[in-house]
Amino acid sequence: MTDQTDEEYREAPSDRTHVKRYHWLARYDQETVKAILDATPLAHVGCMMNGVPFVTPTFFWREGDRVYWHGSSAGRMFHALEHQDICFTVSMLDGLVIARSAYNFNCNFRSVMLLGRAELIKDEDEKAEKLRNFVNGLIPGEWERLRPVYPKEIKATAIASMSIAEASCKVRTGPPIDDDEDYTHPSWAGVIPIRYQVLPPEPDPRNLPDVSMPEDVLKFRLG
Amino acid sequence: MTDQTDEEYREAPSDRTHVKRYHWLARYDQETVKAILDATPLAHVGCMMNGVPFVTPTFFWREGDRVYWHGSSAGRMFHALEHQDICFTVSMLDGLVIARSAYNFNCNFRSVMLLGRAELIKDEDEKAEKLRNFVNGLIPGEWERLRPVYPKEIKATAIASMSIAEASCKVRTGPPIDDDEDYTHPSWAGVIPIRYQVLPPEPDPRNLPDVSMPEDVLKFRLG
Ligand SMILES: Cc1cc2nc3c(=O)[nH]c(=O)nc-3n(C[C@H](O)[C@H](O)[C@H](O)COP(=O)(O)OP(=O)(O)OC[C@H]3O[C@@H](n4cnc5c(N)ncnc54)[C@H](O)[C@@H]3O)c2cc1C
Ligand SMILES: Cc1cc2nc3c(=O)[nH]c(=O)nc-3n(C[C@H](O)[C@H](O)[C@H](O)COP(=O)(O)OP(=O)(O)OC[C@H]3O[C@@H](n4cnc5c(N)ncnc54)[C@H](O)[C@@H]3O)c2cc1C
Ligand code: HEM
Ligand code: HEM
Repeated sequence: MTDQTDEEYREAPSDRTHVKRYHWLARYDQETVKAILDATPLAHVGCMMNGVPFVTPTFFWREGDRVYWHGSSAGRMFHALEHQDICFTVSMLDGLVIARSAYNFNCNFRSVMLLGRAELIKDEDEKAEKLRNFVNGLIPGEWERLRPVYPKEIKATAIASMSIAEASCKVRTGPPIDDDEDYTHPSWAGVIPIRYQVLPPEPDPRNLPDVSMPEDVLKFRLG
Repeated sequence: MTDQTDEEYREAPSDRTHVKRYHWLARYDQETVKAILDATPLAHVGCMMNGVPFVTPTFFWREGDRVYWHGSSAGRMFHALEHQDICFTVSMLDGLVIARSAYNFNCNFRSVMLLGRAELIKDEDEKAEKLRNFVNGLIPGEWERLRPVYPKEIKATAIASMSIAEASCKVRTGPPIDDDEDYTHPSWAGVIPIRYQVLPPEPDPRNLPDVSMPEDVLKFRLG
């Protein structure tokens, strides 16, 4: 439980991203922000709608210093987004941390919160290009193999984007940290590691007899 | 893409939990709500703080018709909670769904959103009892093996609870659904299944030489 210096505190990009609880787990560098964002395609977006701070699970992708996500042009979130600051959270559960005292139970995790205003992409060509990056970011080359996209499909799709500049991360790794005097307590302590597992792809029963699985489908990983 | 009847729509416990997008994936029965809540200990809580709809990743547990989560008595969320309706979201990513058209890409998932007002537990004995249920819910019998909890630790801990009555679920399973005319397009379609993997427990290097791992640590599962 090392204490950060005032110097390090000042690294937070804004007052409101300044981590207070367990502040020794905080990271504000863009390298860590990007590493956590690139570990999983799943975000949880906080957006006020009808008086409720809704949390919507959503796929996203990163391009440079921005994150992007998509949905229905008629979806309520893509209307509400433009009029408020939102919170874009990505978290990975890496393990259950078993201590000698209940109070020091914990989990190993990586998380990032992005704050700020999202923007909608309006240009149809730009939307198509972004969707291509989304698909090919998950499975390289896939966009080019697919039935070409129709203009009406691009129209029906909303894409939001947000800067990753105003960001804070928290990262916990390693064994439990017990109170000094508890290390003599005779209970088992340690970590149960948790991660995502990608299982062998299951072909659609309706696949044409002569199609074969692209190698990049087999290479899909997350974590 | 079956259409729900008005009858089925009316199953939503409230107007605001009524699923509109991909409404054929909606489930409102408490059995499904509980099954999804019991699949993972990780929730994302939406709570308005300082004008931002913050999304906080948090462990939780369920007892009967309520969910519970814990943190610091000095934490900002446990103060903000009592004055607003919040959104408590639990999601599981089960697979990446690869279609023949980009538009019909999807993922398999289970998610639940709970809406309503959370309450704080104030009574110290009740807090201790709930924390015991939290710990033993993850690893049966663990609370009794640990260094007994101190009253000051219970005091430092805030516990919030919320009803699971106002809930909606969305569940997607199975292969991609392509447009009829696209089934002749010669690209590979299918599902890449994803799940949590629990790895072998890693003992704390500072464990006493004669402690042994409780069997229930080995039995820990999620998904
Ligand atoms: C998998 C997982 C499980 C967790 N389980 C619990 C739990 O059971 N109980 C619990 O109390 N906490 C848990 N946490 C930590 C939790 O997400 C919060 O960090 C913590 O509760 C403090 O919240 P706060 O709003 O009071 O923090 P504060 O320190 O007051 O928040 C100030 C600022 O710090 C930043 N910040 C806060 N939390 C995070 C975060 N997680 N990631 C990145 N930036 C952040 C934000 O910019 C925020 O505006 C868990 C986190 C993860 C990833
Ligand atoms: C792992 C995962 C990935 C996803 N990826 C995407 C994505 O990339 N793009 C996308 O558009 N959507 C995605 N979704 C679905 C997303 O969570 C929303 O359901 C969808 O975007 C519609 O949101 P809405 O607010 O417009 O829905 P509406 O139908 O307008 O919401 C009305 C009500 O339906 C209920 N509801 C809405 N969404 C959910 C939900 N997920 N679970 C339970 N109840 C719900 C709530 O009670 C809400 O108040 C994903 C979901 C999961 C679990
Ligand atoms: C790359 C992989 C993709 C994944 C994993 C994905 C996943 C999803 C998911 C999970 C939803 C939400 C469905 C629901 O509400 O339950 C969704 C909605 C949507 N997707 Fe995608 N998608 C992908 C690519 C695309 C592309 C390339 C397009 C456009 C060409 C597109 C257009 C849409 C639209 C318009 C909706 C909203 C549907 C509605 O609410 O009526 N998606 N997508
Ligand atoms: C059962 C397993 C438990 C797990 C997985 C767990 C996990 C966590 C996590 C991840 C945090 C957040 C740390 C951070 O902000 O980065 C936390 C905070 C906290 N936990 Fe637990 N916990 C558990 C049990 C308990 C118990 C039994 C108690 C009390 C006896 C307790 C008391 C606290 C307190 C007071 C905080 C706030 C610390 C602070 O912000 O200063 N926890 N816990």
